[in-house]
Amino acid sequence: MTTANSYISTWVEEIRSGNLRALSRAITAVENRTSDSHALLKALFEHSGHARVVGLTGAPGAGKSTLVDALATQYRKRDQTVGIIAIDPTSPFTGGAILGDRIRMQSHSGDSGTFIRSMATRGSLGGLSSTTADVATVFDAAGRDLVIIETVGVGQDEVDIVRLADVTVVVLVPGMGDDVQSIKAGIMEIADIFVINKADRDGAERVEREILAMQSLSMRSDAWVPKVVKTIASTGAGLPELASAIDEYEHFLATSELGRQRRIENWRNRLREMLRDEVLRRIVNGAFTDEAVAQYATEIAGNERDPYSLISEIVGKLIR
Amino acid sequence: MTTANSYISTWVEEIRSGNLRALSRAITAVENRTSDSHALLKALFEHSGHARVVGLTGAPGAGKSTLVDALATQYRKRDQTVGIIAIDPTSPFTGGAILGDRIRMQSHSGDSGTFIRSMATRGSLGGLSSTTADVATVFDAAGRDLVIIETVGVGQDEVDIVRLADVTVVVLVPGMGDDVQSIKAGIMEIADIFVINKADRDGAERVEREILAMQSLSMRSDAWVPKVVKTIASTGAGLPELASAIDEYEHFLATSELGRQRRIENWRNRLREMLRDEVLRRIVNGAFTDEAVAQYATEIAGNERDPYSLISEIVGKLIR
Repeated sequence: MTTANSYISTWVEEIRSGNLRALSRAITAVENRTSDSHALLKALFEHSGHARVVGLTGAPGAGKSTLVDALATQYRKRDQTVGIIAIDPTSPFTGGAILGDRIRMQSHSGDSGTFIRSMATRGSLGGLSSTTADVATVFDAAGRDLVIIETVGVGQDEVDIVRLADVTVVVLVPGMGDDVQSIKAGIMEIADIFVINKADRDGAERVEREILAMQSLSMRSDAWVPKVVKTIASTGAGLPELASAIDEYEHFLATSELGRQRRIENWRNRLREMLRDEVLRRIVNGAFTDEAVAQYATEIAGNERDPYSLISEIVGKLIR
Repeated sequence: MTTANSYISTWVEEIRSGNLRALSRAITAVENRTSDSHALLKALFEHSGHARVVGLTGAPGAGKSTLVDALATQYRKRDQTVGIIAIDPTSPFTGGAILGDRIRMQSHSGDSGTFIRSMATRGSLGGLSSTTADVATVFDAAGRDLVIIETVGVGQDEVDIVRLADVTVVVLVPGMGDDVQSIKAGIMEIADIFVINKADRDGAERVEREILAMQSLSMRSDAWVPKVVKTIASTGAGLPELASAIDEYEHFLATSELGRQRRIENWRNRLREMLRDEVLRRIVNGAFTDEAVAQYATEIAGNERDPYSLISEIVGKLIR
């Protein structure tokens, strides 16, 4: 066994034995696509496949973070371990996460059974959903029983991320206007469970009626009728019911072959994305040094060079 | 000259002579990445570089479509021709555009000087921002003086699209709650001009104050202070002022070298994306037939195969 392999083996053992520093380093490596992350993921993969993955999405302000934290607490009561991947919207201008570093770990401090990692939506070298899936694999191989992926439910990227999950929870709140309805339209259809959070607010009943009205119109191919759960995440109200609804859908998946089909479908998409990312890493970055791309861009911006011919030429040289 | 070349040449001539059917066919070809679209873009490129590109974004419900139509009318009064690319959010479930086919062309019917094309955010083979940029090139080469790209301002994809523009207009409306503020955070910083639409509504002053407060905090590297323009798109109020603000920023770009720098920066990003798309087209689709990917996905979902080794193997075979 080579040194590199034994180094990876030791790391994997540390991760699997519950060493939080090793886990944290692994997630950072995967997120940054470091040179050893590929070997690490390869080694971790055989230990994965046991965690359940819950995706949770909803508009900004729906109280997702609080809800996810409360859900984690709920699972901790059952003595299950939790890994949370919080996708933060990123400012395109500063490059940093808008929401900044989270201090949410504080609410679980002293409990190694809940591990939260925020990931920014910008700056990841691979596609974001690929990176998220790989981080979920790390949590899974580390023995976390439950992985929760939390996203702001806007944009195609985020919908792709939510699709990674076995169970998708869509969080709504009372009192959002028409404008939010049109954002919701894209994610309503992927919900396995609806949560009406902040359910003590006026309008909770109206939101429920709207969901039920929409459900009567939808045609899910799997005949599952998404449960609607009301919660007040800040007090923990409704959380046991949410955990039960998740259990129920997981049971439905397990008994109906749908869970396996969904995982296969996920892998179909993920393989294409992985192939794309790897080709990108090997080809695109190699063919385009910063100097070369700056030079080409200047010539093209001055209409001195045609970009379409340039790309054909470069690709022709690179591919067998 | 080969037949293929003369076919493309004729097409290009038709597009440049103002033939709307030829223009429409060209956009469809580019959007669908047909086999002749590459040669067409190559031939069109040398005629491009003259149009100004305005990106317009804002939350759902901000009245963007009406505003874009009114802005087009404004430019038509100056006898300038307009091409509009309207990016429609797509339902991930049905695959179709949520907003459905637009009937906006009706308001410009009988005027060949305004041409609107809706594009769905899902299903384009290349990246959406690459496709949008190529469609803008078609409009540009067709002699359109102004190209307006209209998007719902949420998600990284859409921010990338807006960055294609020379001038970015961010549309806000009074009366949106806190939830919308957090969506806005990502796009506030890319605004060259702010529009407060539906400015006859209560709260317009408050929105203006918020923008000004935010501006006092921001540090644009180019020292431009974004203008704030109030409009009521449905009546046309404020539209001349918006067109003037756009003129003013264009003048600023032209006199400060920033316009050229911005175009170079755009091409740097766009070249990488084009290379990625072309590699994807040539490699990924070839390496992964539907049968192969279904088989691989099934094996991986059953933990019988490790996806990371699989990808390394495939990429190693393909790349020189």
